[in-house]
Amino acid sequence: MTMLVPVLPSAGRSRPVPGDAVRFDGGFWAHRQSLNQRVMLDHCDTWVTRMGWLDSFAAAGRGEPDHRQGKLFTDADVYKLIEAFAWETGREPDPARERRIRELGRLVAAAQEPDGYLNTYFGPRRERYADLAHGHELYCAGHLFQAAVARLRTHGEDELTGAARRLAERVCADFGPYGRDGVDGHPEVETGLVELYRATGEARYLEQARRFIALRGHRTLPPHPIGHEYYLDDQPVREARVLRGHVVRAQYLAAAAVDVAVETGDRELLDAVVAQWDATWARRSYLTGGMGARHLGESYGDDFELPPDRAYTETCGAVAAVMVAWRLLLATGEVRFADAIERLLFNLVATSPSVAGDRFFYVNPLLRREPGVEVPDGVAPFRKDTLRANWFWVSCCPTNLVRLLASLSAYTASTTADGLYLHQLAAGTVEATMGGGRRARLRVDTNYPWEGRVRVRVEESAGEWELHLRVPEWAGSGTTATVDGVRRPVAPGYATVARDWRPGDEVVLELPVAPRFVRADPRVNALRGTVAVERGPLVYCLELFDDRIDELAVDPATPPGQEPADGPGDVAVRLAATGVRRRLPAPGPWPYRPEIAVEDGTPAELPLIPYFAWANRGPSTMRVWIPSY
Amino acid sequence: MTMLVPVLPSAGRSRPVPGDAVRFDGGFWAHRQSLNQRVMLDHCDTWVTRMGWLDSFAAAGRGEPDHRQGKLFTDADVYKLIEAFAWETGREPDPARERRIRELGRLVAAAQEPDGYLNTYFGPRRERYADLAHGHELYCAGHLFQAAVARLRTHGEDELTGAARRLAERVCADFGPYGRDGVDGHPEVETGLVELYRATGEARYLEQARRFIALRGHRTLPPHPIGHEYYLDDQPVREARVLRGHVVRAQYLAAAAVDVAVETGDRELLDAVVAQWDATWARRSYLTGGMGARHLGESYGDDFELPPDRAYTETCGAVAAVMVAWRLLLATGEVRFADAIERLLFNLVATSPSVAGDRFFYVNPLLRREPGVEVPDGVAPFRKDTLRANWFWVSCCPTNLVRLLASLSAYTASTTADGLYLHQLAAGTVEATMGGGRRARLRVDTNYPWEGRVRVRVEESAGEWELHLRVPEWAGSGTTATVDGVRRPVAPGYATVARDWRPGDEVVLELPVAPRFVRADPRVNALRGTVAVERGPLVYCLELFDDRIDELAVDPATPPGQEPADGPGDVAVRLAATGVRRRLPAPGPWPYRPEIAVEDGTPAELPLIPYFAWANRGPSTMRVWIPSY
Repeated sequence: MTMLVPVLPSAGRSRPVPGDAVRFDGGFWAHRQSLNQRVMLDHCDTWVTRMGWLDSFAAAGRGEPDHRQGKLFTDADVYKLIEAFAWETGREPDPARERRIRELGRLVAAAQEPDGYLNTYFGPRRERYADLAHGHELYCAGHLFQAAVARLRTHGEDELTGAARRLAERVCADFGPYGRDGVDGHPEVETGLVELYRATGEARYLEQARRFIALRGHRTLPPHPIGHEYYLDDQPVREARVLRGHVVRAQYLAAAAVDVAVETGDRELLDAVVAQWDATWARRSYLTGGMGARHLGESYGDDFELPPDRAYTETCGAVAAVMVAWRLLLATGEVRFADAIERLLFNLVATSPSVAGDRFFYVNPLLRREPGVEVPDGVAPFRKDTLRANWFWVSCCPTNLVRLLASLSAYTASTTADGLYLHQLAAGTVEATMGGGRRARLRVDTNYPWEGRVRVRVEESAGEWELHLRVPEWAGSGTTATVDGVRRPVAPGYATVARDWRPGDEVVLELPVAPRFVRADPRVNALRGTVAVERGPLVYCLELFDDRIDELAVDPATPPGQEPADGPGDVAVRLAATGVRRRLPAPGPWPYRPEIAVEDGTPAELPLIPYFAWANRGPSTMRVWIPSY
Repeated sequence: MTMLVPVLPSAGRSRPVPGDAVRFDGGFWAHRQSLNQRVMLDHCDTWVTRMGWLDSFAAAGRGEPDHRQGKLFTDADVYKLIEAFAWETGREPDPARERRIRELGRLVAAAQEPDGYLNTYFGPRRERYADLAHGHELYCAGHLFQAAVARLRTHGEDELTGAARRLAERVCADFGPYGRDGVDGHPEVETGLVELYRATGEARYLEQARRFIALRGHRTLPPHPIGHEYYLDDQPVREARVLRGHVVRAQYLAAAAVDVAVETGDRELLDAVVAQWDATWARRSYLTGGMGARHLGESYGDDFELPPDRAYTETCGAVAAVMVAWRLLLATGEVRFADAIERLLFNLVATSPSVAGDRFFYVNPLLRREPGVEVPDGVAPFRKDTLRANWFWVSCCPTNLVRLLASLSAYTASTTADGLYLHQLAAGTVEATMGGGRRARLRVDTNYPWEGRVRVRVEESAGEWELHLRVPEWAGSGTTATVDGVRRPVAPGYATVARDWRPGDEVVLELPVAPRFVRADPRVNALRGTVAVERGPLVYCLELFDDRIDELAVDPATPPGQEPADGPGDVAVRLAATGVRRRLPAPGPWPYRPEIAVEDGTPAELPLIPYFAWANRGPSTMRVWIPSY
């Protein structure tokens, strides 16, 4: 039996409904899963092949490591792709895909050394563990473990899972109580080990992850130009108050800390991560949910340092934040983590791929004053702050995206002993089993996020249980739920209906999706005097194809209107805000003056599209935060 | 005869008055030159010794290159220090300093290889020219040339100048028409070669510099993660429209391009650099004159991308910008370049050293939300965005600063056939020779920048000539000049008085130094809704020792008042602005909301000190741009 579950804690507030028991159809995410299936997965396969990252395994296997291609960590991209393939076959069996997985698994296994060690760079070309700070050696191992977990849960043992187990034993021997005290500069092995423990029952793996988490923050890594915080080695995990340093490293470490906390019953550690997440969400996050205010070190800035133009908000950071929020949601049951996941999915995960699915954003700014750098077809740029590109020299983001999209349905629902939680509102079906073997099958009909009506219909049910539907935080006080023809207001959080459900029973949510203005905390210096527009879970943006974006200002007293859809791709709702076009003073020889007169301006209509859809129509300028007047 | 002249073009609009003919006394810059003499120079000597950067020469000389210490480019810091020592002995002869220069010169010369090649890393430890992109090999050579020029002009030939000449011959042979087509990733050798040509008359050096400039921009360097623009190899120098990429590299290259243009009569090349400077000053400069909006790559941002918090504005970038502006001023005679030099000197060059002269800023932000990172005494941090530190692991800034301060008087005045230009207003004396052997000696009395009165008194003179006094651009229409008891308004630019000067004749400038608010071009998104305060040439800032800086807002309708002086160090004028303290809403779980209420606030006085003086009283928060209401 397959079980499409990337995260399967043995304790916590609720238990995930497997992704193969949740089927998206006909909606926003079904479209993206289909694009992933049809285009993105094979696109990634083509590129890891073209870049020589697969050949690195073959070269290592043949004992010709000098033929290795790519940066130190490219093994991880192969593993993430295998993981994605595995989830995809769990979602939709496909014999050709299955053959490819086996083929890749054999390639990986052939590169393994007799004692279980496996890395195409270290070992063959350089002494093992010679550069834990920057080598990404255990990071790659962690991704192999996650690929193996996907394979174990959707297929069973094969060459790849055998290789992963042997490598896990090697890691435990080399870094266990009788091995060295050390951590990898880039966390990942920790969460991979916990999940491999969950999938295999091997308690050594959990213990090794616990050991890595306990060691982190004790400066076993060397100094770094931007400080030990770069790799989260500045403070023990349980003592830190906020996420900091490199965003993806911080998130992967937080995910692992939750995993360890849940499996070992370490409440203090869990509470520490919850507090770190909350502080980070409140003070170091962009409107899109993205994190990473600094390009240097791909890192968090100080509190409220959130420049829209230099927002790094790496796509991988969003994928990683979904991983952390999901773990926290399962552990605590707190709805704010589901809200965060929704924001991240609609405004970053959906943003990275192009409409055609063959190009990806790596960096996701909220302001482009000048059209971004276009990358020709077939080129993998060194730069990451380009427009979408087919691939990157450092290409962690596309493979992260495809593994999340293939498993996305697994992040939708969870169960407790007595109830079913629907965390994300997507058209499709959900089958779930609660305590006492009570089973239910639901059908969700909605055109969300374009429309606010979400109908949840019970198709099958046995026994009495609670249905918990998430009412998003953004909806404020405007939502109603209709049960048995009775409509009543419901507050953000989980709207709960408990009963002995019968087929045909329905709950209909009506969420208020009128466009709304939002403002930033006054501590965010970079956003003073601006407003942004949201509609439902979507952040909107102003996109222009001329160089006059600075001339436009918005009237924050007049709500944006809805326009007929003729936007790019699957954009169903465009908006138009009321504003002015002001002639700015001609730039002078020096940009600072005692008085700078700006005209009142002439009325103008500001075209807005969802942020996820921008940059699909050629080079453009764009802003999420629009000056108001 | 010594001649304290770092830049001595053979053509151009005016000719520099040597720095040893300009004596600062009793004023702002005299104090800093004295601090340089008493503390800073020896401090740098102590640190290049302590870090092992001197020993690298000894190790290379002994054939023990494995004992080399420090990063690839530390030779350059030794050369910059020798250059500074040489200028300082030209300013104030000192037998002990002279002995030290000879000692260092012998050390350097002993590391030279028989064929003239000289570098403590390449050659001894790695193949010559194996990494032109990142090796800083020719960059180090260029700094040796500049040190040799300082020595030639203030002393004469010695071991160091011989070593420099031999290395210059090696560079010309290796990179000349029969050598390789290549440039160094970090420009510097070019301007060093031109100045060495000027000091020695060896035309090959000029031709080699011309060749390097012509090659730059043709992508002989490999791709770089942030693009070829990082090392200005994206476009030929004469085709570029604005400075971009790494700030210091861009400025050093621009300086060299002016040098080559002036010496070869290449008007097109000169015009190109003027246009690049103007565009950069107008759209990519901070209020302090600083450049570099991005920490990543220490580089320029897009036009009007000028975040105050992440301003990099490296101290070296300010030193380099002074170098470029001075060359442009000599070449064109345009006053705006002298205005730029003043802004850079008072607001960045003066900012870097601590009051005691033993700590330095590397990065110079315009906003600190959280107190910066304090560095313990005796530690050279890897990080550059700390508070002032004794030294840095990469320590280009202190040695750049000391060589500029030792030679600063050479940037004060210049002559044409018929006149004397006083570009900077500093207390002291100026002796100059104009065409036809006409000599003049002036005495400048002023408490500038604290007071606006500048009295220029002729002490000796022969013949009729024009005196040109710079009236700064910031003074607007408020300046008067008094000649023969007649006071008349003068506009920014050069106030010119032509006559047959007699001893005792005076011109008195009265500059308006009332505090003034300035605003940023509306295209600078990061500064919307804020104002800054300037007084005379000084940028002021709000510095606080609590964490409540975000609560303060300023009333831009009420001019700041002057406070009695009790500020740090030599701050003679503190200001106080009128404003309010507002209680900000408590940070919520998410920093973006439909409405965010901010109270009107209670009246508050905002203490302002000159930006150059900040961070001398312990960890603090600071802002130049203050929210207005």
